[in-house]
Amino acid sequence: MRPLVIASLAVALALPFSAQAQDLTAKAKALRDRALADRTAYELTESLTTEVGARPVGSPAMERARDWGVAKLKALGFSNVRVEEFRAESWLRGEESAEVVAPYPHKLHILGLARSGPTPKGGIEAEIALFGSLDELMAQPPGALKGKIAVVSQPMPKTQDGSGYGFINRNRTQGAAEAARRGAVAYLTRSSSTDDTRLPHTGAMSRPKDAPVIPAAALSPPDAQLLERLVARGQPVRLKLKMENTYRESVPAWNVVGEIPGTEAPDEVIVVGGHLDAWDPGTGAIDDAAGIAITTAAARLVAAERPRRTIRLVMWGAEELADSGEAYAAAHKDEVGKMVVVSESDSGDGPIWRVRLPKGSSKHPAMQAFAAAIAPLEVVLAPEPATSGGADVADLVRLGAPVASLSPDVTRYFDLHHSADDTFDKVDPEKLAQSVAVWTSFLYTVAASDIDFRQLAAEAP
Amino acid sequence: MRPLVIASLAVALALPFSAQAQDLTAKAKALRDRALADRTAYELTESLTTEVGARPVGSPAMERARDWGVAKLKALGFSNVRVEEFRAESWLRGEESAEVVAPYPHKLHILGLARSGPTPKGGIEAEIALFGSLDELMAQPPGALKGKIAVVSQPMPKTQDGSGYGFINRNRTQGAAEAARRGAVAYLTRSSSTDDTRLPHTGAMSRPKDAPVIPAAALSPPDAQLLERLVARGQPVRLKLKMENTYRESVPAWNVVGEIPGTEAPDEVIVVGGHLDAWDPGTGAIDDAAGIAITTAAARLVAAERPRRTIRLVMWGAEELADSGEAYAAAHKDEVGKMVVVSESDSGDGPIWRVRLPKGSSKHPAMQAFAAAIAPLEVVLAPEPATSGGADVADLVRLGAPVASLSPDVTRYFDLHHSADDTFDKVDPEKLAQSVAVWTSFLYTVAASDIDFRQLAAEAP
Repeated sequence: MRPLVIASLAVALALPFSAQAQDLTAKAKALRDRALADRTAYELTESLTTEVGARPVGSPAMERARDWGVAKLKALGFSNVRVEEFRAESWLRGEESAEVVAPYPHKLHILGLARSGPTPKGGIEAEIALFGSLDELMAQPPGALKGKIAVVSQPMPKTQDGSGYGFINRNRTQGAAEAARRGAVAYLTRSSSTDDTRLPHTGAMSRPKDAPVIPAAALSPPDAQLLERLVARGQPVRLKLKMENTYRESVPAWNVVGEIPGTEAPDEVIVVGGHLDAWDPGTGAIDDAAGIAITTAAARLVAAERPRRTIRLVMWGAEELADSGEAYAAAHKDEVGKMVVVSESDSGDGPIWRVRLPKGSSKHPAMQAFAAAIAPLEVVLAPEPATSGGADVADLVRLGAPVASLSPDVTRYFDLHHSADDTFDKVDPEKLAQSVAVWTSFLYTVAASDIDFRQLAAEAP
Repeated sequence: MRPLVIASLAVALALPFSAQAQDLTAKAKALRDRALADRTAYELTESLTTEVGARPVGSPAMERARDWGVAKLKALGFSNVRVEEFRAESWLRGEESAEVVAPYPHKLHILGLARSGPTPKGGIEAEIALFGSLDELMAQPPGALKGKIAVVSQPMPKTQDGSGYGFINRNRTQGAAEAARRGAVAYLTRSSSTDDTRLPHTGAMSRPKDAPVIPAAALSPPDAQLLERLVARGQPVRLKLKMENTYRESVPAWNVVGEIPGTEAPDEVIVVGGHLDAWDPGTGAIDDAAGIAITTAAARLVAAERPRRTIRLVMWGAEELADSGEAYAAAHKDEVGKMVVVSESDSGDGPIWRVRLPKGSSKHPAMQAFAAAIAPLEVVLAPEPATSGGADVADLVRLGAPVASLSPDVTRYFDLHHSADDTFDKVDPEKLAQSVAVWTSFLYTVAASDIDFRQLAAEAP
């Protein structure tokens, strides 16, 4: 019985403080339950994927997405709804095809990587040089890949925390430049994905100034395995590759913003949201209609409690080529000192399995109230502090904004991410509601309290 | 202890008969274990999918498949290896695309159905009329679909025994003709499939003389659901559809045959095999490289025992448009009286979960030996007799050949069947080996015994 006695003593000794915390906890729990029953996030996801669908930056769909965001935020009662224009890169896909021409003809399933170059109009036909990893490719001397189509066929490990993606993704982002530096005329990589369908997964590659820009595409996993089996037969494997695409360094893009104004400290701002742009093969359901929907639904639920601080909901407009976070930070750098905490929801529909808080904050009564509210939702409160909270808030974090990380289980996320399979039918309403409940509890306990993450971090050992 | 006493008595009373059965059982079990460790089927599946790949009838790949079959049967020691030419239908796909043009633009994922017509060169643009089932469509009066693209969006139930496919598949086979009779200019059906990817599943449709031939295609499940959500918004949904394809009523096709000649009764023939043709989107791994591989590997294992009867392995050359079984029966109708039993393996890599034997045969010592050999493999010996054993033996069965049915679990089969996802990586070597073990046990107990299925059926109550 000793722990109970000690707990009771603690309550008795610190009554005003605990009373406030108990009120926070009770309200956070009530809001959590409201979130679990709320359909707003599911309906927003359905609406964006059905009425806009695929929405790469620089496409007409992105303009419709911007207008959709403004209309939804207004309809849901957000204040100060506005569009912040900035300039972003655009890469738009044209016709693409790939086939094995020798030793046996096969059609391949590919998706060009964003920032890839096109092939000449008639396509490229060349022998492949296949590597099991990017390191193997990089061990080749200059010129070793001259005239070849370089291929990296490494599979991505499936993980709950996304570390498999972190491990493999340089094959997509760095591979083309490394192959080009060694003379390759094109580059193919096995998709950074964990499914086994013929649907490849696109995504951005880097376009460094010191390397030629060559055509580069992702192969579906079965196609990468087919190339491995063909190469294993010992004869030269020749491919024909055709890719059309358009790369523009600067097009208009938009961050869409709405607020739940704070009642007591309106200049203390919590900055959260998701990103509005989405790659073209799917309809951007888990990446990232879900993130927009989760944070929007959570902010709206907290609005009913008239919180003391402002919650700012941002629908970032160019995450995939990493432009919207930079633009947002540049436009709001003078405000960062007033930002209480920042975080983006950009890893799918959920469920959230782990929360990382800003350094030194987990024992604060507000975060204890948050932890109590989410305990039944099977969430781990990680001992280590958050160091990142999504690509669109990375620059705010660099400028000193406290950051939290509410991490969904991504075991299935990379089956779908950046592929034609990122569609509404994949979104699980129960998991989505769990994510909304975690975000609602977090936003409420931060917005209704006076927790100072900067001070707590400074005081932490 | 009573059952044991009775069993011992039975053995004692019927020694010569039981001794033969015990020998059959022991050898069947030994062959089963050899099959479980044998890699031939897995290697054959790898070879056909890698070195030939997609192989629709009337394509150059089908000629390569024929040559592959001849070479493999010879290399594996089969006798009387031969090619039996016949005439078959051919339907070859060209460029295909579909998109929603109103109320919101979306690209759709489709695959034309075999025997479909093409669209005019510029495509068809029309409003859709969506139905939840083919019956709903058929309840429409003549002319009700005039100028419309008819859509049936019914999902297929997932079942272990394939009954979901039987239930839904007329949407694919009959839908276009029914829609055309009511004035539709094109027809789309949700794929007859159980997965949730954006990969549609093709397959044959009927082309009755009394209905116009219209363009017809399968939608991926997420695309069918998208159309349902668009229709639910109450505005007209307009699609643009483009399809190229070539239909020929008569092209050369080939059944490839090899034999394990019987040592004592060579004119008593067991006819088994799989089909060599495969739809173009995948590489025909589970449909039906696996079936060819399973039966070929099983026949080869039995060959080492020098069975008394002949095992004839047929790689049927045009199953998908149902021509090879008809051609085979027409060419061999005078031989049917000598066919001991017929069966095709055409439902994937396994595992086999249910066996149906010819009527009245399950208590025969040979089938008791078979049952004893497969008991540890988690196979149900069904009480009801087999009535069918695959499309390519249906005409032999109609002509009086006894038939057995060795049914794989198809819970996953229709995730892959007729889609781009029918690739080698999906084949499970353990499941494939279990299937080979069941087929080996069956072929051995029939070929090494004198079981007379016709007589047993005639004597059955």
